[in-house]
Amino acid sequence: GKLPFCAMGVSSVIHPKNPHVPTMHFNYRYFEIEEADGTKQWWFGGGTDLTPTYLNEEDAVHFHKTLKEACDKHDLKLYPKYKKWCDDYFYIKHRGERRGIGGIFFDDVDSPSKEEVFQFVKSCAKAVVPCYIPIVKKHCHDSFTPEEKLWQQLRRGRYVEFNLVYDRGTKFGLLTPGSRIESILMSLPLTARWEYMHNPPESSKEAEMLEVLRNPKDWVH
Amino acid sequence: GKLPFCAMGVSSVIHPKNPHVPTMHFNYRYFEIEEADGTKQWWFGGGTDLTPTYLNEEDAVHFHKTLKEACDKHDLKLYPKYKKWCDDYFYIKHRGERRGIGGIFFDDVDSPSKEEVFQFVKSCAKAVVPCYIPIVKKHCHDSFTPEEKLWQQLRRGRYVEFNLVYDRGTKFGLLTPGSRIESILMSLPLTARWEYMHNPPESSKEAEMLEVLRNPKDWVH
Repeated sequence: GKLPFCAMGVSSVIHPKNPHVPTMHFNYRYFEIEEADGTKQWWFGGGTDLTPTYLNEEDAVHFHKTLKEACDKHDLKLYPKYKKWCDDYFYIKHRGERRGIGGIFFDDVDSPSKEEVFQFVKSCAKAVVPCYIPIVKKHCHDSFTPEEKLWQQLRRGRYVEFNLVYDRGTKFGLLTPGSRIESILMSLPLTARWEYMHNPPESSKEAEMLEVLRNPKDWVH
Repeated sequence: GKLPFCAMGVSSVIHPKNPHVPTMHFNYRYFEIEEADGTKQWWFGGGTDLTPTYLNEEDAVHFHKTLKEACDKHDLKLYPKYKKWCDDYFYIKHRGERRGIGGIFFDDVDSPSKEEVFQFVKSCAKAVVPCYIPIVKKHCHDSFTPEEKLWQQLRRGRYVEFNLVYDRGTKFGLLTPGSRIESILMSLPLTARWEYMHNPPESSKEAEMLEVLRNPKDWVH
């Protein structure tokens, strides 16, 4: 049967042209539903995650540290839990790789109280600019080669695979009658590439990136 | 529980560089399973379909006519049935469009007899070259503009959407432990593109293509 619900959220994805500037995605959302017996449920969900083409450890540490600080103000248990949730969520199972180097991700959060969760989500949202913009400023004038651009395009192919095959928001969005397709698929990159049996040479920068996507690291302790 | 099975097939996808040469895909397959009670089941499946960037009515008629002739040798009911099945199968629901201008598609075919179905599938397979190669030869030296190449890339984005979101072979392949991912995803184009709210101008060649993808036509009677 039909049940009254209310959903709201804000999402953003940035796919920069320069392969030295990582892709960043965040989404924060709030849901309310009324069950058949009249009881009301509410929860928050969301997260912020980074998808570099090339690994820069300093950037990875800055990104995760900024998110950890936002979480730590509320509860020291949150960052480790939501960091792991993020690594688990953005997993491209058929590739054995994650989409990127993660960040934080959570869903169905309805405790300790609506006000406290809202304060936490606001802290996360306020951390988006400080965790990402310094990385953009640091790299947006980096020069890059055609080979680096090509690797970026192959990584964007994996981004498309994750979003179309696994992402809950995309899958349920596409299946929802009357949903706004352009809003759902705006998360896809402008361009992407697939090459048969592409495998970067051992100990290349590309292989170094893949290694971290296969075995996520703890960037801050 | 585990049941003995045997599966074999041949698949091919060609994504030409020139936007005036359509993408062509075919797949023919044979399955055998042994059920828990020892009874054996077998069936054939497959099809051949065309995905042009721009509509060329003469080519569409040639393609469908060649497939119809291959079907008609076996049973006059086959082409209309499998043409419709193809239009229904290659439907990108969230776009309200088909992937291309169709062809034939069938699955679970186990009658009238294994030998007769095998003869039919062989006729279909033999029709692949005559239905497609004349179109390639006709257009492979056509000149094209950057705008035509861009429209090709946007259409390839839709091809990726269909294959990753809807195609049964791709979906089940990706979910099968130990499957060979590179063989499954070789159907994806080399490159693809997505643009927010892209809508070709009315009565353009691009709009004419979309019209047929939204409302499939009968190319031969």
